[in-house]
Amino acid sequence: MTQPTPPRLDVIAIGNAIIDVIANCPDALIDDLGLSRGGMMLIDADQARDLYAAMGPAREISGGSAANTLAGLAALGAKCGFVGQVADDQLGEVFTHDIRAAGIAFDVAARAGDPPTARCLIFVTPDGQRTMNTFLGASHYLPAEALDDAMIADAAVLYLEGYLWDPEEPRAAMRKAIAAARAAGRKIAFTPSECFVIERHRADFLSLIEGGEIDVLFCNEPELAALTSEADFEAGLAALRPKVPVLVVTRGADGAVALSGDKRAEVAAQPVDKVVDTTGAGDLFAAGFLYGHVRGKSLDDALRMGAICASEIISHYGARPECDLAAFVAQRMA
Amino acid sequence: MTQPTPPRLDVIAIGNAIIDVIANCPDALIDDLGLSRGGMMLIDADQARDLYAAMGPAREISGGSAANTLAGLAALGAKCGFVGQVADDQLGEVFTHDIRAAGIAFDVAARAGDPPTARCLIFVTPDGQRTMNTFLGASHYLPAEALDDAMIADAAVLYLEGYLWDPEEPRAAMRKAIAAARAAGRKIAFTPSECFVIERHRADFLSLIEGGEIDVLFCNEPELAALTSEADFEAGLAALRPKVPVLVVTRGADGAVALSGDKRAEVAAQPVDKVVDTTGAGDLFAAGFLYGHVRGKSLDDALRMGAICASEIISHYGARPECDLAAFVAQRMA
Repeated sequence: MTQPTPPRLDVIAIGNAIIDVIANCPDALIDDLGLSRGGMMLIDADQARDLYAAMGPAREISGGSAANTLAGLAALGAKCGFVGQVADDQLGEVFTHDIRAAGIAFDVAARAGDPPTARCLIFVTPDGQRTMNTFLGASHYLPAEALDDAMIADAAVLYLEGYLWDPEEPRAAMRKAIAAARAAGRKIAFTPSECFVIERHRADFLSLIEGGEIDVLFCNEPELAALTSEADFEAGLAALRPKVPVLVVTRGADGAVALSGDKRAEVAAQPVDKVVDTTGAGDLFAAGFLYGHVRGKSLDDALRMGAICASEIISHYGARPECDLAAFVAQRMA
Repeated sequence: MTQPTPPRLDVIAIGNAIIDVIANCPDALIDDLGLSRGGMMLIDADQARDLYAAMGPAREISGGSAANTLAGLAALGAKCGFVGQVADDQLGEVFTHDIRAAGIAFDVAARAGDPPTARCLIFVTPDGQRTMNTFLGASHYLPAEALDDAMIADAAVLYLEGYLWDPEEPRAAMRKAIAAARAAGRKIAFTPSECFVIERHRADFLSLIEGGEIDVLFCNEPELAALTSEADFEAGLAALRPKVPVLVVTRGADGAVALSGDKRAEVAAQPVDKVVDTTGAGDLFAAGFLYGHVRGKSLDDALRMGAICASEIISHYGARPECDLAAFVAQRMA
């Protein structure tokens, strides 16, 4: 009997390919515009035009939840690949450049014609909180053909973001990827991304979890409650614990908890001088944890690495690491 | 005899409409790519493609020298207008959004078809020094019709950047603007922008200066030497002093000097915690000084305001102010 070929990549992720458009904003503007403070709202092209007109001077930085997590993983030294859909336009070129420049394999062809590349209009209030408004554009049109089974089999972990569960075509692509990863004996990591995604797809997500399809589940405290219908945090943890081998729940400024079998680890939030912009905090927490996990670190250490990566990303605008993240983590783990 | 109508704007500027693409870069890459460390180099579309491919993950922030100066002036409370050319593309939309969101009037129609909106590929080394490589694209095609005499007469100061003296069409537009400003009794402020621009257009610039067309001249130390052919700093100052009513020379970390009639003011560089990215330091120095100047501040105070604005811009990536610049200056002037 021949040994199976070891996977070439550490993590392959399927997610939205988004350019973040990030502007400072006074607290009052969030209310004036009727935005969902601290949340993520999907908007159409008309809403995007109107909101952009109401926005202050901005900076454009590549984003997308799973893509941000990969950028963190790659900066830490993991070998990664990304699957997502951009349009054949300038913002698509920017996204493609940035993800490849981060050392991540990305080969999905840009999609011709309308709609344009996805953008997320992010209003950052003086407390550093981000309020996101996403026009998904081309990102929704990821075809199942964009990934093949060999590509999925070629990575130790398949990472999926719930945001992309919403549109039909990428959902089919993700279902196909899950089956391919299972068949190849690979692990599957998943984040439901947002409470509103859970509201729309709770049955799907619970079916994946109950069916043992998820090896590592990332969520935040409200998402845990939404998934389990348990208002009590510990009751929520207890409900999911037997169903996923690794469960990681982030609690914002209150740190995070990880459960795996009979082990439980907790970490406080890593202190930062100033919270500039919380965009990507969860994404980079996942990056740090997952890196520790695939490198065989203890549950405690993986959790600390998540907290450290999250602290880097909230210290500046945007959800892509700005410093030498590997050195940043190594210094703080020492 | 009727009184002339007071100008509606404080400053109108003509300049390149550029999106900055800013990435961190190790020192060695500057040499490997054969770039001009700390300088600005013009590149064509092919060079832009190759350099972008060699660049790390980046952030996109509106730029353009005179446009940055206006962003600073507007943030301080001045009423401003901008004249420059973008293409009808996504980066053109970004530039247009950002300048209007800064409260600056900008009404030049986007130009259809190729070339695309200008971009400047900026490599930032660990010391915060920026090395700029500009693909001017649509910015070169600013037609003289983009501005009319009434628009120029409507601003107390006409501000011109030398960068735009290079291409023929905008040069004609600037000559027309100078004549209109003179006819309306407005002041003209000018920066030659870069030594290589002076090398190409020294005769033009000296003719403007000798002809008494420039009321406020901004340059840095190497540009002063290039303009005057005087290697000695004081000799350079002495050569220009009689020819321009206000002369402002920046000296990087060594501060700046301003001369006006028999007055001389000097300022040290404003201390900063960390120089992140020097992009826009001169532009924002000009903004602070010019704001003080149009508001009737003393030469000393205007110079200090310049140094304070420059210190804000080098504390973060990009050449557009990130904080409440008026409050930032007020606090440090107190």
